[in-house]
Amino acid sequence: MAFDFRLTKNDLHSKARLGRITISHGRINTPVFMPVGTQATVKTMTPEELKDIGVEIILCNTYHLYLRPGHELIKNMGGLHKFMHWDRPILTDSGGYQVFSHSELRKIKEEGVYFQSHLDGSRHFLSPEKAIEIQEALGADIIMCLDECTPYPSTYEYTKDSMELTHRWAKRCKEAKKSEGQSLFGIVQGGMFQDLRKESAEAITRIGFDGYAIGGLSVGEDKVLMYEMIDAVVPYLPEDKPRYLMGVGTPEDLIEGVMRGIDMFDCVMPTRNARNGTLFTKYGKLGIRNAQYANDPNPIEDGCNCYTCKNYSRAYLRHLFAANEILAARLGTTHNLYYYIRLMADIRDAIERDGFQEFKAEFYKNLNS
Amino acid sequence: MAFDFRLTKNDLHSKARLGRITISHGRINTPVFMPVGTQATVKTMTPEELKDIGVEIILCNTYHLYLRPGHELIKNMGGLHKFMHWDRPILTDSGGYQVFSHSELRKIKEEGVYFQSHLDGSRHFLSPEKAIEIQEALGADIIMCLDECTPYPSTYEYTKDSMELTHRWAKRCKEAKKSEGQSLFGIVQGGMFQDLRKESAEAITRIGFDGYAIGGLSVGEDKVLMYEMIDAVVPYLPEDKPRYLMGVGTPEDLIEGVMRGIDMFDCVMPTRNARNGTLFTKYGKLGIRNAQYANDPNPIEDGCNCYTCKNYSRAYLRHLFAANEILAARLGTTHNLYYYIRLMADIRDAIERDGFQEFKAEFYKNLNS
Repeated sequence: MAFDFRLTKNDLHSKARLGRITISHGRINTPVFMPVGTQATVKTMTPEELKDIGVEIILCNTYHLYLRPGHELIKNMGGLHKFMHWDRPILTDSGGYQVFSHSELRKIKEEGVYFQSHLDGSRHFLSPEKAIEIQEALGADIIMCLDECTPYPSTYEYTKDSMELTHRWAKRCKEAKKSEGQSLFGIVQGGMFQDLRKESAEAITRIGFDGYAIGGLSVGEDKVLMYEMIDAVVPYLPEDKPRYLMGVGTPEDLIEGVMRGIDMFDCVMPTRNARNGTLFTKYGKLGIRNAQYANDPNPIEDGCNCYTCKNYSRAYLRHLFAANEILAARLGTTHNLYYYIRLMADIRDAIERDGFQEFKAEFYKNLNS
Repeated sequence: MAFDFRLTKNDLHSKARLGRITISHGRINTPVFMPVGTQATVKTMTPEELKDIGVEIILCNTYHLYLRPGHELIKNMGGLHKFMHWDRPILTDSGGYQVFSHSELRKIKEEGVYFQSHLDGSRHFLSPEKAIEIQEALGADIIMCLDECTPYPSTYEYTKDSMELTHRWAKRCKEAKKSEGQSLFGIVQGGMFQDLRKESAEAITRIGFDGYAIGGLSVGEDKVLMYEMIDAVVPYLPEDKPRYLMGVGTPEDLIEGVMRGIDMFDCVMPTRNARNGTLFTKYGKLGIRNAQYANDPNPIEDGCNCYTCKNYSRAYLRHLFAANEILAARLGTTHNLYYYIRLMADIRDAIERDGFQEFKAEFYKNLNS
């Protein structure tokens, strides 16, 4: 099945839009949030639980799977879907971001990046061609071009050089791709410079991909700057292709991103925060380890229909976190992912009924109440 | 609902027997294995998953719950069943065993035991009356008398003194109990001395309880000695009350225990081993971290109908364990508990159809193949 993206509605008052991606492992309603399954598992969760929550696509990390258990092993086991027992769509990143963030010892060259494993120090080389080869072995539905995620802050000169390398690598990725059933997304870089962001969007769309990602954001810059960069890119991306804001973000970021025309998001925030005891509610974050919840018979969020909120009190959850029980991480993750998936469903409903502005106002009203 | 135990069948060739306990939160088919939910959670599992596997009763630890989150808190939250969202029967131990095994600093006196918390060093006092008070606050269906679990090895004199203290404490526990809906079990001690075991069984049954436990076994002695001690006790326990072998054991121990007339077992072995990557199969234990399973597409045990075996390969499980993923502990625990619960169901079926001897022979044949 070829990649198909249909826009079904444009919001009247913002750049928000509704769409549907159809791809070999199923349909994805956009705007969509993709939970992160770094090591071929969305931490603590079974695939059935993800489906129950309404997850339509997950992201897995090429860097981690390449190092352990190895892409060839996964290929021999029938591919990533079969290996991890997940039959809905998967997106894999290129591995570049983790190489840059995990590896102290790395050298970026024209041909690719030389790095050492964070696991055992072994030496590796990742090129555009290699990134595609690994992702083809893994067999995700959507695969990504290798890019350099420009560090923040960076000078204009460094950012421009880095961006141009990303463009050359994008072209090589497209040329290297042999698989038929997979879709390839390009990545726009350009750091925190509006003119470079525009230039990158134009260069990447000129090469031509099934979808376009905005990389290099949420790397330490403030929110205003991040939103400016999104605004600098979106007008130069084609209307008829999905737009993916990589590694973002908070619930507010999702709302702001959708408003600016973003269709896809991924972030470790709901899963990682859950394991630390930070739980999302419409009234803001709740630190369940706090002593004030010791005797609290209420659910995390009143009215929430997730498995955790329907069956467990804050007092019990606090006890599980205090006692370092694995069930704590499970119940927290279940709630946080439900919160994120429900938020995206609510956003889609709001756009559908021409009520996105009111939804956004209500969202911020609750958050600040 | 009062405690009701019906013997439904006696094996022709051994002391094995079938029975049914009916109690306020439901029915329990014996012989039964009780998974351990130390801190008000069977580690990694939800109550729904335990039910899917067929778990009919779990054990929770009074010592842990008394220290954290506290029995009064649990009582205020509606009792242990509601707190942990488990609506089937629960058995709580008295807390004595953990006091003796966790606390370096403890003093046993006639009135009770003085000890320091393993969590924060705070000082506490556990008496027979206090053990009952805590267990009444927790609200388990079956509660246990406070006993001294005699250390191994111990001299005859120490063991006899310890056993006699256990008998005096048993009487005080029975007198202290006020709750109507709970059943109280006595505990037979007597170390590794057959005459003391007999004496203890007679003394404890003279006091009179709803069921009888054999304590102080599986504490380091060899298997032959443990089985001898069971044989020394069972003839002196009444036919019409359940017999509970505390803290035992391996799959072999369950078979040997049933054969000797035991109706109830509990042990952390299936859950703890699972988290270490040691998985039970009918052909013996499988160390899933072993490199030989890296490329193995087979399930843990061919033909096993547990969720894990139906959906995941050894290769995937090995990867999850190597990557320290929480899902590893979940999938391992699911399989091991299923193995234990299925083993007990198979034992019951075998007794029912007068085939326990053949079942046992087949079990050992597979194990040694």
